[in-house]
Amino acid sequence: MERRPIYVALVHYPVLNRHGDLIASAITNLDIHDIARLARTYDLLAYYLVTPLVDQQVLARRLIMHWTDGVGGDINPDRQEALGLLRIADSIDEACKEITLETGSRPLVYATTAREWPASLAWSELRREIGRHYDSILLLFGTAFGLDKSVLRGVDGVLSPIEGKRRYNHLSVRSAVAIALDRLLGGN
Amino acid sequence: MERRPIYVALVHYPVLNRHGDLIASAITNLDIHDIARLARTYDLLAYYLVTPLVDQQVLARRLIMHWTDGVGGDINPDRQEALGLLRIADSIDEACKEITLETGSRPLVYATTAREWPASLAWSELRREIGRHYDSILLLFGTAFGLDKSVLRGVDGVLSPIEGKRRYNHLSVRSAVAIALDRLLGGN
Repeated sequence: MERRPIYVALVHYPVLNRHGDLIASAITNLDIHDIARLARTYDLLAYYLVTPLVDQQVLARRLIMHWTDGVGGDINPDRQEALGLLRIADSIDEACKEITLETGSRPLVYATTAREWPASLAWSELRREIGRHYDSILLLFGTAFGLDKSVLRGVDGVLSPIEGKRRYNHLSVRSAVAIALDRLLGGN
Repeated sequence: MERRPIYVALVHYPVLNRHGDLIASAITNLDIHDIARLARTYDLLAYYLVTPLVDQQVLARRLIMHWTDGVGGDINPDRQEALGLLRIADSIDEACKEITLETGSRPLVYATTAREWPASLAWSELRREIGRHYDSILLLFGTAFGLDKSVLRGVDGVLSPIEGKRRYNHLSVRSAVAIALDRLLGGN
């Protein structure tokens, strides 16, 4: 394979709410558009929307169809191209299985968090790792108040908070994905 | 002054529409929130919303008040802190005048564009320039289909497109601001 396959997943379950309870968050139209355009810009293979809620999956599929098959695609072919990267998965594990089928090996899974996490990985380290030609990589981003610890414990690595040394660290997940992809793949 | 003062402006006029006509675009709730949180994270001094449309200014002021003085601020103090950085200006020139009054000298103004522009500045160059302790800097981002050429011609420098070497380059302005601030101020 010429180029290392990179995937991103926006996770709506299992995530935390403001009080630290486990929830399934709702999908957001703007997240879908902004992250699809980022995924296309940085040449990712796909952008997974992870939600086990069937009504949310139906909503997402309607939105994708509007922009890929419907009038939206005719009016705005750039959106069509970006939204074409979107895939829906019931769970992180289902996304991993699909990637395994597609690439022939299980992806390395890296999670992001705005909180401190022991032995977290620097962005520059993962950028170097990406430069080597091995397995595919799946990058996880949590919606709401972030990924549940059960996810962080089960992955191959957890990245350091984006601006962890600063006092204020409350970026939208859209901003976090933008900065993350640029740190890993951008600039040159 | 200890730290170089940096400002960002989201410009709603003069910008272009899809057909290249000069327009004033509408303000967007999500832009305001995402960019305010970015401005706060990267320790900017203020985030200017530039629009000459009075009804849009009124709308923006109501939104700001909800989050800074209203119930929104009580529920979400992080938003309150971010939205507190928002200022409204009739024009880019008015923002420059306010910054001049605040800092004692006229800011260096840099514009961003997704298009090619002769003698554009690399992000690493502006990052080095920021490292030197001189005048304040105002970074301009255009909404809709980007800043009008009259703006690009009048500034101290125009930055290179964020991922200009790639085939697809259609980021949302929210994503562009996130990546720009991280390239200039992030990471360390």
